Amino acid sequence: MTERLVVIGGDAAGMSGASQARRLKDPNGLEIIAFEKGNFTSYSACGIPYAIGGVVDDFDELIVRRPEEFRDKYSIDARIRQEVLAIDLLGRKVTVRDLDAGREYTEGFDLLLVATGAKPIKPPLPGVDSQGVFGVQTLDDGMAIEKFVADESPQRAVVVGGGYIGLEMAEALVTRGLKVTVVELAPQPMSKLDPDMGEWVGEKMRAMGIELLTSEPVTAFEEEGGRVRSVVTESRNLSADVVVLGLGVKANSDLAAEAGITVGSAGGIEVNKQMETSAPGVWAAGDCAEKYHRITHKPVVIPLGTHANKEGRVAGMNIGGAYATFPGVIGTAVSKVCDLEVARTGLQEQEAEELGFEYIASTVDSTTRAGYFPGSSAIKIKLIVEINTGRLLGAQIVGEEGAAKRIDVLATAIWNEMEVAEMLNMDLSYAPPFAPVWDPVLIAARKAWEKLESSRRRD
Amino acid sequence: MTERLVVIGGDAAGMSGASQARRLKDPNGLEIIAFEKGNFTSYSACGIPYAIGGVVDDFDELIVRRPEEFRDKYSIDARIRQEVLAIDLLGRKVTVRDLDAGREYTEGFDLLLVATGAKPIKPPLPGVDSQGVFGVQTLDDGMAIEKFVADESPQRAVVVGGGYIGLEMAEALVTRGLKVTVVELAPQPMSKLDPDMGEWVGEKMRAMGIELLTSEPVTAFEEEGGRVRSVVTESRNLSADVVVLGLGVKANSDLAAEAGITVGSAGGIEVNKQMETSAPGVWAAGDCAEKYHRITHKPVVIPLGTHANKEGRVAGMNIGGAYATFPGVIGTAVSKVCDLEVARTGLQEQEAEELGFEYIASTVDSTTRAGYFPGSSAIKIKLIVEINTGRLLGAQIVGEEGAAKRIDVLATAIWNEMEVAEMLNMDLSYAPPFAPVWDPVLIAARKAWEKLESSRRRD
Repeated sequence: MTERLVVIGGDAAGMSGASQARRLKDPNGLEIIAFEKGNFTSYSACGIPYAIGGVVDDFDELIVRRPEEFRDKYSIDARIRQEVLAIDLLGRKVTVRDLDAGREYTEGFDLLLVATGAKPIKPPLPGVDSQGVFGVQTLDDGMAIEKFVADESPQRAVVVGGGYIGLEMAEALVTRGLKVTVVELAPQPMSKLDPDMGEWVGEKMRAMGIELLTSEPVTAFEEEGGRVRSVVTESRNLSADVVVLGLGVKANSDLAAEAGITVGSAGGIEVNKQMETSAPGVWAAGDCAEKYHRITHKPVVIPLGTHANKEGRVAGMNIGGAYATFPGVIGTAVSKVCDLEVARTGLQEQEAEELGFEYIASTVDSTTRAGYFPGSSAIKIKLIVEINTGRLLGAQIVGEEGAAKRIDVLATAIWNEMEVAEMLNMDLSYAPPFAPVWDPVLIAARKAWEKLESSRRRD
Repeated sequence: MTERLVVIGGDAAGMSGASQARRLKDPNGLEIIAFEKGNFTSYSACGIPYAIGGVVDDFDELIVRRPEEFRDKYSIDARIRQEVLAIDLLGRKVTVRDLDAGREYTEGFDLLLVATGAKPIKPPLPGVDSQGVFGVQTLDDGMAIEKFVADESPQRAVVVGGGYIGLEMAEALVTRGLKVTVVELAPQPMSKLDPDMGEWVGEKMRAMGIELLTSEPVTAFEEEGGRVRSVVTESRNLSADVVVLGLGVKANSDLAAEAGITVGSAGGIEVNKQMETSAPGVWAAGDCAEKYHRITHKPVVIPLGTHANKEGRVAGMNIGGAYATFPGVIGTAVSKVCDLEVARTGLQEQEAEELGFEYIASTVDSTTRAGYFPGSSAIKIKLIVEINTGRLLGAQIVGEEGAAKRIDVLATAIWNEMEVAEMLNMDLSYAPPFAPVWDPVLIAARKAWEKLESSRRRD
């Protein structure tokens, strides 16, 4: 008997799931149809700022696999510009709109994978829908910005939100010759870092010629003839030919919710470790699905391609009749902004505090290579350590070339619930082109341990 | 009551120990005398090839702390060119030769830290003591080579041994304009990697103009007027104006052994986790001391600055009345040779086999960044996994810029006895400038896991 899998969403999670299911079951056992609303399947959305900034030559390079390839090599019927409008769980069918033909049709399914991704947060402010105001989520979004910049030659850009994507876009637009202002509600950019770690980012942005306005709420977007002409904040009016919204995204879980699939407290589709939703025979993966946070033990929504790929693979394995589980996340992230590398994993101070952890925070400055070695660059590492257990709760890195990827060592330590006391003598690699004789990670662990010990003695 | 600590050896382990003890006890509680046979204290021996190759401008940059600094800032009486000839455990004194004055004297001690380091392995071959044949262990060795190259303008160099130090020195001498031949006994260079991983290194060496002769035992060194003129192997005679011995080192444990301190099966001084030797009140640390290998559970000798520093610190803490332990090593190492980055941790195939582990080995090729991102370079990762437990036993990396430091993630995984099944979904950082959407470490874990699963199914 041939079953049919329908996949809603043709990017990382959906197509990873489809491909993985295909590896386990041939077309006689499993027919696969994937619906994608946009023009592209399986691409690197994280690469958009680099394509706009010209670091990457062409948007084409961001495409991993086109629909034809899925069809020809994987026997997956990947259909672009097909928007799924409704899921009928009982009738086992989806209603689809062909965006080009303008017609609607239904397709039946036995198994369903919901991979509807995320959507940029759009503040409910006057003028937010004006022409020239862009979110950055899909490849189509990215290409729309590219086209606008190329065709309309905007001079002034305002980026609303100073998180990863906002700063990456600000840098890209500066590279394209625009005058760029970043407006951030918080007192500092990069709120996924603690303020003391984010400071350096602000300095570098300003050095690159980006105007950075912090603690500044945006109140409206002014338009002229339907086209944005300025961004209004509580304290000023910023003229803008183009606006990029970098306010983060939220899980695109509406379609699932409307069908009666349970959406959790974090706003994403609830899934178990096998990526099964509340509805039998229905999986969810990627940005639309909640993830289990291994430190807080709470569901979170973290839109990130690497999670989407892994979750898609896990869903695909289970759909294909194997068994796999996704063990959760710990909030690891990395970015390169304005010649700085920034990274984080685990909890920030504020998160640790809100969750009621008693902790110490300790920050060290070191170098990426032996101090005397050419190319040795500055690196700052902050560790957050639970006082009771001595366990590492979180880590942040800001630094120059060669700094940020060290976060993976700290992520692996957190993953294994290591105590800093054990970390300070770990056998990490040393040679002058790669590290000082005490790797910065070990120095950070040692200093945190010393602070922990002295905090205990004070008690 | 003031006690006296005597430290034998003024490099990483000895001076880390002395400084750490000083942090805990002031000069009223602990007098510290450190004897160093050579001209320098506390330096980076690993930096020698880079100083000779001109990557680092000056040997001075390799010096971390001079004797005056120890004396003035730490109240440590650090004496250079003082060779300890004998330890009298019962009489609690050492006999010292002042190498400049030519006189001998004794100094009493209450506590003793032996940090005599390692010595280059010198094959017992005719002519090995000729002028122009150098080991590379101490800063004095390095400066002697530098002086020889600068003063005598040698044209042809032969490096005996194709391990880390041999290859680093070969590259340095090529950079200085010498014609360099590396003679290696094994079938491939870099025997701390498996042959399939070492191959690439051989290619790169040849591309750099280094002549590489493998499976070629050296039988003699020919000299003329006391000065080396050629290296004789089983199959040829290689003319040489300068010869570098890169055959590894052995623990310098003779002095301790002569005093009755127990030397272990690996040839180093036996120590417990607190770095205590068999003799009460006597510690050992660094290259002269054995280390506990956390995977094999056997003592090993691994000469490496980073271990020396950590062990010195642990010894110093215990000497100073605190409590600390050194948890052992897993064989992590990294090097940059001929534009390649190489790294390893845990067991190689041969070691795993000799120890009777049943394992699978799996190698993957990936890139250091997203494939489309500028600077994305090749990386090859090999994992060795125990079949029974699924536990990661060892890992090796060879690659270009940005490859090798990933070994620390694998080292941290091994440290925590992780199974590959758990590793493949670890929350490692992703962004296009830093990794493909599946980090190479995760790809390696996934492929190893798949191979493991299929090997189990075959059983």
